[in-house]
Amino acid sequence: MELRRLFAGTAEGEPVGIGDDAAVFKESPGYQGVWSTDMMLEGVHFLRSWQSGLQLGAKSLIVNVSDLAAMGAMPRYALLSLALPPDTEVDFILDLCRGFRDVALREEIAIVGGDTCASHGGLVVSVSVGGFVAEGKAVLRSGASPGDVIVVTGYLGSAAGGLGLLKESLPDQGLEALKAAFIEPAGTLSESRRAVAAGASAMTDLSDGLATDLRHICLESSTAALVYELSLPIHPELRLAAERYGWDPVSLALSGGEDYGLLFTLPKKGAEATVEEMAAKTGSPVTIIGEMIAGSGIDLVRVDGSKGPLTLQGFDHFAR
Amino acid sequence: MELRRLFAGTAEGEPVGIGDDAAVFKESPGYQGVWSTDMMLEGVHFLRSWQSGLQLGAKSLIVNVSDLAAMGAMPRYALLSLALPPDTEVDFILDLCRGFRDVALREEIAIVGGDTCASHGGLVVSVSVGGFVAEGKAVLRSGASPGDVIVVTGYLGSAAGGLGLLKESLPDQGLEALKAAFIEPAGTLSESRRAVAAGASAMTDLSDGLATDLRHICLESSTAALVYELSLPIHPELRLAAERYGWDPVSLALSGGEDYGLLFTLPKKGAEATVEEMAAKTGSPVTIIGEMIAGSGIDLVRVDGSKGPLTLQGFDHFAR
Repeated sequence: MELRRLFAGTAEGEPVGIGDDAAVFKESPGYQGVWSTDMMLEGVHFLRSWQSGLQLGAKSLIVNVSDLAAMGAMPRYALLSLALPPDTEVDFILDLCRGFRDVALREEIAIVGGDTCASHGGLVVSVSVGGFVAEGKAVLRSGASPGDVIVVTGYLGSAAGGLGLLKESLPDQGLEALKAAFIEPAGTLSESRRAVAAGASAMTDLSDGLATDLRHICLESSTAALVYELSLPIHPELRLAAERYGWDPVSLALSGGEDYGLLFTLPKKGAEATVEEMAAKTGSPVTIIGEMIAGSGIDLVRVDGSKGPLTLQGFDHFAR
Repeated sequence: MELRRLFAGTAEGEPVGIGDDAAVFKESPGYQGVWSTDMMLEGVHFLRSWQSGLQLGAKSLIVNVSDLAAMGAMPRYALLSLALPPDTEVDFILDLCRGFRDVALREEIAIVGGDTCASHGGLVVSVSVGGFVAEGKAVLRSGASPGDVIVVTGYLGSAAGGLGLLKESLPDQGLEALKAAFIEPAGTLSESRRAVAAGASAMTDLSDGLATDLRHICLESSTAALVYELSLPIHPELRLAAERYGWDPVSLALSGGEDYGLLFTLPKKGAEATVEEMAAKTGSPVTIIGEMIAGSGIDLVRVDGSKGPLTLQGFDHFAR
């Protein structure tokens, strides 16, 4: 009942929100429903000590919203399920719910239901997000064509760098942007709207790392991709951290997960102007990193001009 | 990709199923969307040794479908998220997915997405189910009026009895129905359709135990309830097990969770004929156990004619 009170007001105007067996939604003629789900586990995706409850709650909703943004869809509804270990501090969970609610209020998402139970393992946060897209207008992974340019929003590898600092408890002076990239991903709804308006042909979000996410677009679109190392948007702090801790910044940019920017393809004509305008309006980098070509697979053009297949896999939760 | 192949064919005709960032659904003019979510955790809701993967997968979908049945809604879509501990046998997970798919195929539910990740704790199965209800026709918990009769489908307390046998590793000869009630709940979509057709005024599913679930209807409908002990549908095996192991069958019937029958209220007129017909058609018990009255709270009329407030709480996952 505490949660229901906490989420009161986020679902006003909906037929039925939290407090019945299921949530009931308004009709939206001319629109199709879009749903996605994601689960975050303590010890796998986060440790409780890494961030505040507010930050964790906000991230758990943002990473789900990211999936809808990647379809060009508008999120409208969220379901939140929590499995709580016995040692969970109530304040942490209330903060988690407040962080979740803050994002919901900001993005006008109604929190319409969920489930709470005990966990004998770690904290589990499972979120489903639903929304709408105008009929037939979803931007799929399958729409890219040879000749399209490949665009990413934000920096690549920053979240992986932040995760590295957290996992290995490394000193992080001067590396605050990396930690923030992992702990507080920014969300991409406005970028998504601009990408759709600019005619994005295929789109996905950068959750598993560029190499994996771009491979999905290549496979679904039956095309190949060419990526230029020189074009990869790498944050100066990632270069600094890489130097300090002996990491390879390019590997992190190519395969680090959880940046939660957008990866999309655009018809070449007018793409540079579009990208410049998007960057100016959103205040964060929007970068052409390569182009789609006929064939299969991904080739990387190195800074020295050499070219070879990009074999790096993206972030793998199973790797330890 | 294995899962995607396994679920191929369940989402035919949908705009986008598994394999993109989110699932996109057909429009359904005149209908409202209905969504619900539920999470099952190893060590909390189940042990892997208690049932086959097939059974666990089937149950994980059925308990979610149960929430939609309790709204009088038709399930159409499912999202399945799995967190897999390192010691998980692949065959168990494939069976889990097959059990999930079998229910989906039987009930014409499209498996449209999900998420798979590693767990360092136990196996976690998180499911979201979506569907439709004709506009304004959802059967809420808030629709009961004094004078309505209270109806339950199936037996009360059987699943709690089955869980008791499993938890305490008790000999279960002659008690197979109890274990089956916990491991293989039957689903209530056909009962739900009949209850809606008969004019059910309020409805929920029996997930947390009669006392808790009926209290939800009382609170949401601002009415009270009178329940007759003599009317409670208690399976002969629960009485047998209770005798053998010193349990109180009436307590289990009142507060045992996870029976996943329906609990609904009906206008008194014609209710007995309705209930008899439902029982005949579904082949399992449909029982009037009491009536809604003015006031608040739940009173239990004991077999000896004495009457007192029903203070038992339902099944509590936090109790150990």
